[in-house]
Amino acid sequence: MTESATALTVSEIEDYLREVFPQVYENGDTWIVEAVGPMTARLRLVVSDRHLRPGGTISGPTMFTLSDLALYVAVLGQIGKKGLAVTTSLTINFLRKPSQRDLVAKCRLLKLGARLAVGEVAIYSDGENDPVAHATGTYSIPPREMR
Amino acid sequence: MTESATALTVSEIEDYLREVFPQVYENGDTWIVEAVGPMTARLRLVVSDRHLRPGGTISGPTMFTLSDLALYVAVLGQIGKKGLAVTTSLTINFLRKPSQRDLVAKCRLLKLGARLAVGEVAIYSDGENDPVAHATGTYSIPPREMR
Amino acid sequence: MTESATALTVSEIEDYLREVFPQVYENGDTWIVEAVGPMTARLRLVVSDRHLRPGGTISGPTMFTLSDLALYVAVLGQIGKKGLAVTTSLTINFLRKPSQRDLVAKCRLLKLGARLAVGEVAIYSDGENDPVAHATGTYSIPPREMR
Amino acid sequence: MTESATALTVSEIEDYLREVFPQVYENGDTWIVEAVGPMTARLRLVVSDRHLRPGGTISGPTMFTLSDLALYVAVLGQIGKKGLAVTTSLTINFLRKPSQRDLVAKCRLLKLGARLAVGEVAIYSDGENDPVAHATGTYSIPPREMR
Repeated sequence: MTESATALTVSEIEDYLREVFPQVYENGDTWIVEAVGPMTARLRLVVSDRHLRPGGTISGPTMFTLSDLALYVAVLGQIGKKGLAVTTSLTINFLRKPSQRDLVAKCRLLKLGARLAVGEVAIYSDGENDPVAHATGTYSIPPREMR
Repeated sequence: MTESATALTVSEIEDYLREVFPQVYENGDTWIVEAVGPMTARLRLVVSDRHLRPGGTISGPTMFTLSDLALYVAVLGQIGKKGLAVTTSLTINFLRKPSQRDLVAKCRLLKLGARLAVGEVAIYSDGENDPVAHATGTYSIPPREMR
Repeated sequence: MTESATALTVSEIEDYLREVFPQVYENGDTWIVEAVGPMTARLRLVVSDRHLRPGGTISGPTMFTLSDLALYVAVLGQIGKKGLAVTTSLTINFLRKPSQRDLVAKCRLLKLGARLAVGEVAIYSDGENDPVAHATGTYSIPPREMR
Repeated sequence: MTESATALTVSEIEDYLREVFPQVYENGDTWIVEAVGPMTARLRLVVSDRHLRPGGTISGPTMFTLSDLALYVAVLGQIGKKGLAVTTSLTINFLRKPSQRDLVAKCRLLKLGARLAVGEVAIYSDGENDPVAHATGTYSIPPREMR
């Protein structure tokens, strides 16, 4: 459980995401990495009309993408660009109808092992106290010899 | 566990999806409902360049969306348009790197209760035997008085 | 999201658990409800030889039982004995090999709706900082007319 | 995806389980490995009064234990005793109230990689068609040098 500073800065991470996940940004989405710390990350999705479903809610796949990205950023902040961690599983619970506001994802890694990282993400409508979704995910970290 | 014919036909379901999930189709995605049966559904995603990540793989969010949609279609086939089932949870395991082929999702409902439906989805690269992803999801079915 | 005092006290909850889950206690297990608060609960399992597997670790089913019980206690603290909430799903991630110490489960409800409660549990080896397991679970709350 | 015969026979697996999981058997439980095949396993729990909760239902932890054991047996059937696979995550959905009959667990591995195995389990009340529970689980397989 490293408590050291992160391996990459926020802007290094954003540059890397645009390189490896161009399709995340292709719709003009504004996914912002707000902070990366030891075993943590905070992301924001600037919500626009295109995320909204009839009734004004934000789609499940959008919240899945945000969870997955937040976990990936937290792992990246710890291990750096040396290897490509891949999502192996993700469980998401949808809790409340989100407001028509930005979504803020707060991620915390629960484990960072040599081969497996596990973390949780709570997603909030910006400025509200009760989470709209909660996810736990698992990432496979490539063996050292493959990095 | 109803074994009756489905409440809606494939084309009624596709019309309804375009009405309630316009954003699913907005990128020109071709999500095809291939079949709906008692407690089952089969969907196809016609894969194009925009789903591919560097390395030729298909993104996790794309497979999440396909799983969620397949479960929704299977529920819709059973209960019809009387109420709007909402996803309450979804667990997805990513198993293999998909080929650069269409994805086929085979969904089976495990339970269709008065308030809760539970189902599983196996996703395959078209023509292959081993699943690339597997999901289980839970849907909340609105109470009769709300329909 | 109620912030009121709990519907039942710790000792009322323990009495009720012995009544409805006698088998939890039948092996002489010491499952202790340490605290119940608004949307929270803390439980302790006094670990003895019978929970240990070869190598000194604590079994997965023991940690599952503790998670399930912690979520149930948190729900019970909110809704009281009026209805019997039943577990509908539980996802558990095993993170580290537990020490040969008591297990402490810290539970927080993420949602308490009219029909569904969702919560998370982090399990720690007593006195340690990194969780040994993490669970999220869903409970179905019986309709008012059935209570 | 090996399609070869299993690495261990049913009786070799049962002997090994009694050696590594003595506590599973300590209550006089009758956990029977009925069959092991390529990527599959079938187990039976002979249900007795001690598994029953008030109302005649079988406890969640009992079904969790059966799922976990079925997945473990299926992995063991493929990789043999060379290493100790450990459960890293398990998601279980409880679908119906089980009958007061034996439980039968049918497990199928979805993936058997060098480092990770993933499988699903459907649990039935003996002789019935609709599953009472469904689980998916992930196992970490120790690196070759540790075997």
